Amino acid sequence: MKNWHNTLKIYNSLSGEKSHFKPIVNGRIGMYVCGPTLYSEPHMGNMRTFINFDMVYRYLLFLGFQVKYVRNITDAGHITNSLGQETDSIGAAAKLEQAQPLEIVYKYNTKFQELQRLYNMLPPTIEPTATGHIQEQIEIIEKIIENGFAYMVNGSVYFDVRKYSEKYNYGILSGRKVDELAEETRDLNAQGDKQFFADFALWKKANPEDMQIWRSPWGNGNPGWHIECTAMSTKYLGKKFDIHGGGMDLKFPHHEDEIAQSCGSFGCEPCNYWMHANMLNVNGQKMSKSMGNFFLPKEIIEGSSTLFDRPFEASVIRFFMMQAHYRSTLDITQDALTASEKGYQRIADAYTTLEQLIPSAKSSFDVRALVSSFYEAMNDDFNTPVLIANLFEATKKINSIKENKEQISAEDLQLLKTEYQGLVSDVLGLQISDNNNSSEHLEKVMDMVLELRAQVRAEKNWTLSDSIRDGLYNAGIQVKDEKDGASWEIGEIRN
Amino acid sequence: MKNWHNTLKIYNSLSGEKSHFKPIVNGRIGMYVCGPTLYSEPHMGNMRTFINFDMVYRYLLFLGFQVKYVRNITDAGHITNSLGQETDSIGAAAKLEQAQPLEIVYKYNTKFQELQRLYNMLPPTIEPTATGHIQEQIEIIEKIIENGFAYMVNGSVYFDVRKYSEKYNYGILSGRKVDELAEETRDLNAQGDKQFFADFALWKKANPEDMQIWRSPWGNGNPGWHIECTAMSTKYLGKKFDIHGGGMDLKFPHHEDEIAQSCGSFGCEPCNYWMHANMLNVNGQKMSKSMGNFFLPKEIIEGSSTLFDRPFEASVIRFFMMQAHYRSTLDITQDALTASEKGYQRIADAYTTLEQLIPSAKSSFDVRALVSSFYEAMNDDFNTPVLIANLFEATKKINSIKENKEQISAEDLQLLKTEYQGLVSDVLGLQISDNNNSSEHLEKVMDMVLELRAQVRAEKNWTLSDSIRDGLYNAGIQVKDEKDGASWEIGEIRN
Repeated sequence: MKNWHNTLKIYNSLSGEKSHFKPIVNGRIGMYVCGPTLYSEPHMGNMRTFINFDMVYRYLLFLGFQVKYVRNITDAGHITNSLGQETDSIGAAAKLEQAQPLEIVYKYNTKFQELQRLYNMLPPTIEPTATGHIQEQIEIIEKIIENGFAYMVNGSVYFDVRKYSEKYNYGILSGRKVDELAEETRDLNAQGDKQFFADFALWKKANPEDMQIWRSPWGNGNPGWHIECTAMSTKYLGKKFDIHGGGMDLKFPHHEDEIAQSCGSFGCEPCNYWMHANMLNVNGQKMSKSMGNFFLPKEIIEGSSTLFDRPFEASVIRFFMMQAHYRSTLDITQDALTASEKGYQRIADAYTTLEQLIPSAKSSFDVRALVSSFYEAMNDDFNTPVLIANLFEATKKINSIKENKEQISAEDLQLLKTEYQGLVSDVLGLQISDNNNSSEHLEKVMDMVLELRAQVRAEKNWTLSDSIRDGLYNAGIQVKDEKDGASWEIGEIRN
Repeated sequence: MKNWHNTLKIYNSLSGEKSHFKPIVNGRIGMYVCGPTLYSEPHMGNMRTFINFDMVYRYLLFLGFQVKYVRNITDAGHITNSLGQETDSIGAAAKLEQAQPLEIVYKYNTKFQELQRLYNMLPPTIEPTATGHIQEQIEIIEKIIENGFAYMVNGSVYFDVRKYSEKYNYGILSGRKVDELAEETRDLNAQGDKQFFADFALWKKANPEDMQIWRSPWGNGNPGWHIECTAMSTKYLGKKFDIHGGGMDLKFPHHEDEIAQSCGSFGCEPCNYWMHANMLNVNGQKMSKSMGNFFLPKEIIEGSSTLFDRPFEASVIRFFMMQAHYRSTLDITQDALTASEKGYQRIADAYTTLEQLIPSAKSSFDVRALVSSFYEAMNDDFNTPVLIANLFEATKKINSIKENKEQISAEDLQLLKTEYQGLVSDVLGLQISDNNNSSEHLEKVMDMVLELRAQVRAEKNWTLSDSIRDGLYNAGIQVKDEKDGASWEIGEIRN
């Protein structure tokens, strides 16, 4: 375990401040992150959240922690917005596509897994599904009822926010006040069977049009949206774990209700640190399905998004995201991506240059201080933009060493290489190609060979001309002489 | 839809003969295949089954059918061998690896999905899990009880084979006789609570050591091994569907019991065609985990298996498998793979040669008959070895056309290209690289350039020598002159 693990600070959304991170069990971390609802292909804004938590996971591993990382897949349930309105998105998509709900989820999960590979995200320890944990959800609801914080009405079960507020602080995470919540809406229909506006469904009685229905002690129905996360996080990480993450938009009501469910069933808050990742903006507006201003991660790589006039590589997009702090909003524009592309290339070049540097007797600058600056940035609440600024500083030094303007000792070179490359690959998750794109090199070498061939012919040097002809034949290069010069194409290698 | 869809014959394990395939709904096919039990990494023998059914799926799609392909993931339950002995493999692995059962399944499913990509298998329409369909399993058990074909003992539910045999034919698929089954074992302990040896568990009362326990009308327990397939196949494909496939080793008891469960609950057999894929042998013995003679799909690609002294490409292994009929056993040896590698290369070369052929006014051979021979092979119960033999015939013709020994008309060339390439890529699932491996070509061209450089220097032709130096510099090729000649490596391209 690296010494740096002792000085990690995390901004805790619950306290509103950065504090030293201390895991419940020394050296081990349990982390839960709210994953995608797979009724359609995740858009770039969704991906930003998952890429940011991938970076957090990677850094914790890099520090030497054993991390159990659970990120769920929502494949059932009604999603509730902050006004208490509910939609069964998966059911709606299933009807639209004339398939079973889990066929829809499988289809989009296949795409999501492909995107994870493309954006070089590590698979979590497990991606549990809501439908695979119905019984666990029912058991927690039973506990909440038993503890007096839920009531049954017409085959549904609701969380009793007012009753809960007598003992616990509902609003502890979001800062909302129970009394004020009721005034936020005039939509009385949204209240339905609930006794109080802020109450939320733990179990919903089945509607005739529901495509996913389970048996329960309260009759046929389906789980409320929030209960799956309480069931799966505690199943895999215990009643109290270290870190709970998710998109900023989940803070209320989803995460607030998770806290209420944990306190209401187990008598304790679910985790010690709440982390919220900020949104991706397009022209200053949050990217979202409902706004219609979203694009798909594949569109940007293929260059088919109308927002950009050319494609960008997945590594460049990942780098662009890492240039913003996870708690800041980020505006995605063509200019910003183009700038990131240049920065990414500088890092990538230095990454390979490190392999070629020749060490001197001693270093002309403080390499240890430089390396420390990497960890100081990351230990300050995963400050990747500052890390990248410090990596650019290192890049300048690396280029200076190459040009003999600075010197580095063998020991320092080893240190710089390990840490620079480790942070770039293992923490930022950038896939630096080994610059071994032979086809480009072949193009260039062939430019030279064809020029040579012309010169040799002009000089009537038939020996050399024959050598070139035979060499190209063996290499499987077919040269065609045309009016405006020679062209070539690749064929079969002969020997 | 291709006309060839009318003449497809499938060997039906149930009837023991080949018969014309007729789907229940015109133009549509429902196919269910028993998938992996993910308590460890699937070995090469498991993969053969899945690759064979991938080929079946691909050919049905190629013919123009709309195919719904369901392949389950077993993530719960006790697996029963033909002697009636049960093991909870996932539970055992979970205890060994100190993790939750579904963490184990997730881990190995991640590897399985990677293997599918590596071996170019198409994702099914859905891969449903047993744990995601507990309620559906309970509902079918209830129906079987209701129909009088199951009984409850001590919190478990067993299928009543003798009662069932009064009305239906138990043994219809495997040919086993109920009376003889009891005599197959002397292990009376295996009978447990069962009234009759051949009875099998639909629901098992929970043992204290079980790691996966669900509630049921019969108390806490877990599903029998066979019921999940009945639940998931009928959920996604209806009570009666077209094709049910699986490995030969699943014929008895698993598939026999699936038939009994379908008849016992819905009063009809589950499908019209039963297909069984044969095993992969190593030195004449079936590859299996219990025999210890297995190797992992990755080992053969990486060259780390002790059975082979070098690595083989996934496409070559897939081609090797396609050279055997799915119902034949197949022995995997180094010699056989080496032979397949050559054959694969001939096909791959012809695949690209097809792009370069120049058509003549008319064809000198019967191209339509040749193309028909491809379909005739595949329509004869997916006879891929005959298809490949016919593709080799076509390969000869393609090479003859290239050498101007045969002619082909433009129309026939289009036909041959479409069908040859379609069957190779889309049906056999071979990924033909575009022969564009620039690094090999670059090696060969550089051999020539360095020889030329030596000649030019010997001739003191400084103009040419300078051209070569500048050309290589721009191409980012760094040449090092050493005692025994010059070597080179790739660097950064300069302009």
